[in-house]
Amino acid sequence: MTGTGSLDSEQTAADGPAGGSGRRSHRVTISDLARRLDISKASVSYALNGRSGVSEETRQRVLQLAEELGFHPNSAAVALSASRTRTIGIVIARDPALISTEAFYMRTLVGIEQYLNEVDSSLLLRLTGEHGEDLDVLRRWSRQGRVDGFILFDEHLDDPRIPLLKELGVPCVVVSSNAPDDGVGRLISSPEQTVTLLLDHLVELGHHDIAHVSGPFHFVHEQLRVELFQEHAVRRGIRVRHIEGSYRYEDGAELTRQILAGDDRPTALVLGNDLMAVAALRVATELGTVVPDELSIVAWDDSPLCELARPGLTAVDQQTMERGRAAANLLFRIAAGDPELHVEAPTGILRPRGSSSRAMTEAR
Amino acid sequence: MTGTGSLDSEQTAADGPAGGSGRRSHRVTISDLARRLDISKASVSYALNGRSGVSEETRQRVLQLAEELGFHPNSAAVALSASRTRTIGIVIARDPALISTEAFYMRTLVGIEQYLNEVDSSLLLRLTGEHGEDLDVLRRWSRQGRVDGFILFDEHLDDPRIPLLKELGVPCVVVSSNAPDDGVGRLISSPEQTVTLLLDHLVELGHHDIAHVSGPFHFVHEQLRVELFQEHAVRRGIRVRHIEGSYRYEDGAELTRQILAGDDRPTALVLGNDLMAVAALRVATELGTVVPDELSIVAWDDSPLCELARPGLTAVDQQTMERGRAAANLLFRIAAGDPELHVEAPTGILRPRGSSSRAMTEAR
Repeated sequence: MTGTGSLDSEQTAADGPAGGSGRRSHRVTISDLARRLDISKASVSYALNGRSGVSEETRQRVLQLAEELGFHPNSAAVALSASRTRTIGIVIARDPALISTEAFYMRTLVGIEQYLNEVDSSLLLRLTGEHGEDLDVLRRWSRQGRVDGFILFDEHLDDPRIPLLKELGVPCVVVSSNAPDDGVGRLISSPEQTVTLLLDHLVELGHHDIAHVSGPFHFVHEQLRVELFQEHAVRRGIRVRHIEGSYRYEDGAELTRQILAGDDRPTALVLGNDLMAVAALRVATELGTVVPDELSIVAWDDSPLCELARPGLTAVDQQTMERGRAAANLLFRIAAGDPELHVEAPTGILRPRGSSSRAMTEAR
Repeated sequence: MTGTGSLDSEQTAADGPAGGSGRRSHRVTISDLARRLDISKASVSYALNGRSGVSEETRQRVLQLAEELGFHPNSAAVALSASRTRTIGIVIARDPALISTEAFYMRTLVGIEQYLNEVDSSLLLRLTGEHGEDLDVLRRWSRQGRVDGFILFDEHLDDPRIPLLKELGVPCVVVSSNAPDDGVGRLISSPEQTVTLLLDHLVELGHHDIAHVSGPFHFVHEQLRVELFQEHAVRRGIRVRHIEGSYRYEDGAELTRQILAGDDRPTALVLGNDLMAVAALRVATELGTVVPDELSIVAWDDSPLCELARPGLTAVDQQTMERGRAAANLLFRIAAGDPELHVEAPTGILRPRGSSSRAMTEAR
């Protein structure tokens, strides 16, 4: 439970509007100190770091309140002292229309921004087309010293961004599914954990024949997901077939139509994102296939679309906002010289909902 | 029809994956020229602007292709030559959890980014809390000369950001519902147009008693919406009551529960955003109120949530991505000295869906 953005009606009805957000409110930040003392965050930061720019009286007030409230500057605060620009860069090369319909990016960006705001830093953002313009932008921002480093998404096979940034000597954190020892920062979210969560769930419900509609195979994380599904299928003695999708609604709909038109229908579908899962649910319903009685549908990642679908879509909450926070934190630490390059992303959580249930018949 | 992000099943089934995106592909951009000539966008820009940095041969190739393809540098290109930073700033002071669940921001940002990418410029983005930290950031970025100007959202009554930016002499564009002559740029989206679209639709279906669950009244645009609904209600001889909401799912659910618990139930609900409309639909269904037979539900703005709800939610497509593009374009023009400060936002379009139908009984 991320505590934010949850729309699950049972939970919100019980917990009220602020449900689950209590945990976050206990962390004391520079903002809290600034607000209470009615001074700027910069002044608090100067006072805490022993830099000039505040009076001795203010410094004492800040230090006293920091002690009272139990404020402890974290490792990022140290990193920040090494930051030249107080800015990180993100360049995303994907179809803008897709970005605007996928909750993943917005939630990740919000998590990153939450963290940046706490450490009084900013994000320089660029959405480019899919034709390599992103490399131009990475190169330019690096040479102009506009950012302290980059967070990279959507790692491709032989991704040219990584050697480029290494050559330019600019720190980066790849939000990643794998952990090669290539000298760049990686926030590693294990697809194996999600594969395990989803297959445990489906196999327990008696599903032995599953179709997996993935995202594009040119993404490293999609290749890895397919490999892991295969490995686990063999180990568990079940069948998982793979169909390459695009993350688009239209594709999720069309591929589901094809799968359901065949003679050899699976009893469960796994879709590579929320949008394709909603599409699958709708197409199945339109074709008269009852979900979940005749077909279970589960999504790789959760979103309001999954929560609000009817039946609700079983999905894995990938803790996306927390992941964004962790990526930004790692980048600042690396920029400050922390030798620890690899960090595990927060663990995903299965959200079982109405779209998955016991397989209708195990013998077909 | 924006041509992007549309998830309507009828349309996607008929039009295929690329449905509606044809229009955009005809605009020739600097990126197109760069790609075709296999040179950087900066080189194209240098060539077109007669600046040094490219060989005479390249300049001729660029100019020739520009003529062949009918490329015309727009007013923004002129503006860009006056730009110092090629960067605009956006500072949003709202609860991050809300931002991550509302499609409005992401689509607007994507529209802005699309435009910025075409003119080879960037966005400096900051999400702050709701405690006035945004003013600090505006002040700092202005003084440091980090941006050429700002786009402002969520205008409050007596919004302190506007006098601050005027004092600092930094251009800004307010994405706005009204048009005071206060010397700052405004992209004006007329709430009257949306009020008219929604009331025409509902009154035509026989609804004379409507409840409007708004966003917070401290936003200028929400006050204006309430006033306009009232004005039109009087003119049309119908009843519209107003309940202040927060844009949150939980609030949409709770307020709908209260409205439906009363003796004096309206026949139609208007919700101030997509999230509250989805909440209203769900609560009504849970309480056994059949939508649309016993209650029509319509949303102020459209999103995938509205399209994917069952029944689909009637909503106004506010052309959010186009609006983002228009705001960025206006800001660049103002930064270059264009005296035209006010521009009308693209017109919204009603998307009638299954959640609204004829009022069950007109005499109550």
